[in-house]
Amino acid sequence: MQIDVIPNIGEARTDEFLHKTVIVIDVFRATSTMIAALGNGCTSVVPVETVLQAKDMQKPGDLLGGERFCKKIPGFDLGNSPVEYSPSAVQGKRVILTTTNGTRGIQKAVRGEKVLAGALINGSACAKAAIDFKRDVIILCAGTQDVFSLEDGLCAGLITSEIAGLIGSKQITVNDFGLAMWNCYLHAKDNMLDVLQACANGKRLCKLGFQEDLAYCAKVNILPHVPVLDREQMVLLPF
Amino acid sequence: MQIDVIPNIGEARTDEFLHKTVIVIDVFRATSTMIAALGNGCTSVVPVETVLQAKDMQKPGDLLGGERFCKKIPGFDLGNSPVEYSPSAVQGKRVILTTTNGTRGIQKAVRGEKVLAGALINGSACAKAAIDFKRDVIILCAGTQDVFSLEDGLCAGLITSEIAGLIGSKQITVNDFGLAMWNCYLHAKDNMLDVLQACANGKRLCKLGFQEDLAYCAKVNILPHVPVLDREQMVLLPF
Repeated sequence: MQIDVIPNIGEARTDEFLHKTVIVIDVFRATSTMIAALGNGCTSVVPVETVLQAKDMQKPGDLLGGERFCKKIPGFDLGNSPVEYSPSAVQGKRVILTTTNGTRGIQKAVRGEKVLAGALINGSACAKAAIDFKRDVIILCAGTQDVFSLEDGLCAGLITSEIAGLIGSKQITVNDFGLAMWNCYLHAKDNMLDVLQACANGKRLCKLGFQEDLAYCAKVNILPHVPVLDREQMVLLPF
Repeated sequence: MQIDVIPNIGEARTDEFLHKTVIVIDVFRATSTMIAALGNGCTSVVPVETVLQAKDMQKPGDLLGGERFCKKIPGFDLGNSPVEYSPSAVQGKRVILTTTNGTRGIQKAVRGEKVLAGALINGSACAKAAIDFKRDVIILCAGTQDVFSLEDGLCAGLITSEIAGLIGSKQITVNDFGLAMWNCYLHAKDNMLDVLQACANGKRLCKLGFQEDLAYCAKVNILPHVPVLDREQMVLLPF
């Protein structure tokens, strides 16, 4: 199995996604939020690029969620904090979600044979799903405004490490950037929260008062839920 | 001190180099070759982009060095193997060098206040020089055809780690990509040759019979020599 890790959305060449499993990662916070929402009983998450698209798409009963500049969008039901997407908030509802980087990452990945949402919280489950699909894997780190973000790279390293653990490291070939993220994850894994607090988005979230989100998103392999793209919406992969 | 690590030449925005120390890294093999050549008594290395430029610039006594597709250029005196640049070959000579990525990296960095050539073999010396210059630092990984190469990232991590060791990690702020490379280096450092043999360029060099170059370039902190750009040529920084 070939595993290629891409450092940010701007570096992605979508013609390389054909026939592959693409795992989109935006640890802070879009993919963590999608996983939490679907895990807590939301029926589907529709990733859209603009606030206007989100509002146009909303039908009775739908929730609007998302952020701009890390903050909840005026008039929306929910922001981009996974901890907001509790069972009581999202059970049985569809969520229309627009965020700065994560939803753009999903849009970019649509040419993949399967498109999954990965984060630290479901890293192991993502690895298992990717193995089951028996395709080469692209791990697309969303990054921030086309710049690499450490938290996404660490998650790419986690998923690579989990795949290697499950099928054996001799069964995979990893591109240089993926090898770097794998090494990086192995060094940082016992100290994850400290490392995440020191990176650019970790500092930004703490400054804005989102320490709880940071602590939640830093948890590794706590959920079995894997969102998968089904036409235009993310739904839960059976597990 | 701010330290920004850039993953490949294509990602470099040269207006950000002003007033900064730029360390260009092409471990396999251009910067390793420059360091070896100057350490072995060559008077200067002139990095040029094309074979024609190299030939046009050659004066009596000058040596022509470089590679295309990893191999020595027909008619040139030397290839791009640091081990070729022995004292008997280069003592007292000027070398005109053209390589695929490393010389392009130097050209790209010319707007820096100081431009240094770094590799694993002189990582610690580069770190000391950068500290002495008292400027913010850009570490420019040359990469390969605008794609990240692991060996350059590991060297960026080494230099960041050395700077942190010398002035204290609280005295530096590192961009996310640099933090990733630092963690990556710390995990790989006790196993450097194996890691380098597994990356794309390591495999390529082994396949082409350059195992000796790989073993040489993988040595960490063995030389005190730091090439610095002086107008259009690299000369040895006094040490």
